[in-house]
Amino acid sequence: MIRAIEWIGETEGYLQLLDQTRLPNDIVRLSCREVVEVFEAIKVLRVRGAPAIGVAAAYGLVLSIQRVDGSRRACEQLVKAADLLKGARPTAVNLAWAVERLKAFAGARISLPVAEFQRAVLAEARKIDHENAAMCKAIGQHGVGLIAQGMGVLTHCNAGALATSEYGMALAPLYLARESGVDFAVYVDETRPLLQGARLTAWELSQQGINVVLICDSMAAQVMKEGRVQLVIVGADRIAANGDTANKIGTYGVALLAKAHGIPFYVAAPSSTFDLSLANGTAIPIEYRGDQEITEGLGKRTAPEGIKVYNPAFDVTPAALISGIITENGILKPSELQK
Amino acid sequence: MIRAIEWIGETEGYLQLLDQTRLPNDIVRLSCREVVEVFEAIKVLRVRGAPAIGVAAAYGLVLSIQRVDGSRRACEQLVKAADLLKGARPTAVNLAWAVERLKAFAGARISLPVAEFQRAVLAEARKIDHENAAMCKAIGQHGVGLIAQGMGVLTHCNAGALATSEYGMALAPLYLARESGVDFAVYVDETRPLLQGARLTAWELSQQGINVVLICDSMAAQVMKEGRVQLVIVGADRIAANGDTANKIGTYGVALLAKAHGIPFYVAAPSSTFDLSLANGTAIPIEYRGDQEITEGLGKRTAPEGIKVYNPAFDVTPAALISGIITENGILKPSELQK
Repeated sequence: MIRAIEWIGETEGYLQLLDQTRLPNDIVRLSCREVVEVFEAIKVLRVRGAPAIGVAAAYGLVLSIQRVDGSRRACEQLVKAADLLKGARPTAVNLAWAVERLKAFAGARISLPVAEFQRAVLAEARKIDHENAAMCKAIGQHGVGLIAQGMGVLTHCNAGALATSEYGMALAPLYLARESGVDFAVYVDETRPLLQGARLTAWELSQQGINVVLICDSMAAQVMKEGRVQLVIVGADRIAANGDTANKIGTYGVALLAKAHGIPFYVAAPSSTFDLSLANGTAIPIEYRGDQEITEGLGKRTAPEGIKVYNPAFDVTPAALISGIITENGILKPSELQK
Repeated sequence: MIRAIEWIGETEGYLQLLDQTRLPNDIVRLSCREVVEVFEAIKVLRVRGAPAIGVAAAYGLVLSIQRVDGSRRACEQLVKAADLLKGARPTAVNLAWAVERLKAFAGARISLPVAEFQRAVLAEARKIDHENAAMCKAIGQHGVGLIAQGMGVLTHCNAGALATSEYGMALAPLYLARESGVDFAVYVDETRPLLQGARLTAWELSQQGINVVLICDSMAAQVMKEGRVQLVIVGADRIAANGDTANKIGTYGVALLAKAHGIPFYVAAPSSTFDLSLANGTAIPIEYRGDQEITEGLGKRTAPEGIKVYNPAFDVTPAALISGIITENGILKPSELQK
């Protein structure tokens, strides 16, 4: 299984990231040795996917406490780094969650000798990483029963191995189904503007021998109408207490189209994606990104100079359109999140 | 108003086309002096839009009868050219319609001296062109009442001046509303894979001073949910007797999204787009286009090598999703086409 994020070495190590902006044409691994490099990598989507940026940020905090004299000073550096990293992407809750967890962990160990402090923080970052991988596998195990022989599954964006520590979220049930010999096709929305479906999902699924059919986002309705799709699975960036789910822009449209065609629509996400402090989706902050992702995102200018652009990076799918949320603890109805 | 197609000169003239594959970055006008150049221009979408390719094909037939000895020989050339041109794009009915009309017209004038025959065929091609411009204006006049001050209108693909002889189909009501001082915003779907919305519609609307907001196709549901859109108008490539409408891929999805948000969905098309020989949309032939439009359509490769692609160029919107069809004769309900 592909690893998008890896800590290399021990406390004096570095973070290695598979640069997802270069896929599928170039397989480039970046070595990040400074927090600001991790910030940049998250900001410009070299590493992306809610769980993956949480894990990358945790290792980023480990970088912030290297070559520092004394645990108190190290902890101050870590807090500064935490503030920086949290600002890199506002919508994904896992980023803030991972950073806050490590901050609290470090704060409680400030009296340790610095070498021990560093070792403990690294161990905790690794724990977040391993927990994430285990969660993904559990999501896969709970969701694998949805995948039947000969089925067509549609997915949007990339909630796969590249977005997590391993296996992915939306793609975890597909990987486990494939491992147990089930044959099926996956219709992959290319996912404009940044083409995570075309560049990342199509790539990682085909790397694992899964039958991929790439389509434009505008073709999802048609493949549903033609009876090619029996199931939709997508990931999530944040899920409110009532089950309303923020995910990549276009997800809400896919959910409406699935409903119109009577196709079950599932969200796959670890429970760290739940934000029970938000009653519903209207409170989820939505990130707006730059015009150039749309007008020049593909190597050449594709729109007139000076044109006005609207570029929300996420949308919110109302709980009513969601058949179930596949978590590491089982498949929940959106209404069961608060139990 | 922009002219995408123009006949320059008299019977020994040539066809000038605005190369729409080069917009919006380069404004290049092509001079076609051979039928095969017109065929190529239609095939690779240098000229596109159902009415426009009908007009271009008519002038293409005029090219086929230049420098020919005798009307009988000219007519044979014209018939050969007609067969060639009809094969350039299978879905748009106007192409076959224009070509057949000119073929019948020429066939009835085979006894004329060749110079008179050539003049008559050119005059008939010009008549198709002028009728098209007049039809577009009439569509605009019938549809202009749908556009209210402060409204948001969403459109998909390009059914504008570039797709017709003038004013366009879906865009004609917008141009007429703008001419009479109404202010409104137009949300333009970029329209993957070939980006006719981003490259053409955004360009021609902003050339005429209309307030354009460019979005990705995947954002249409979100702008509807946010209450930014009160009306959808799209064009059509072919309309079956029951009102089922073939148009650019993605139109069917937009129609479903409009319905889910209670937004009226109008098709604007001249009656030459009606194909009453087809009982419903299932009989409309759909063109499938090459993989590279999706995987390499934008200047660089955006999907893994060897990936399977599904690329239908059109979809069919069922009549039940269509609020009305704006024609040169007024706004019809889909059920009223056969009257």
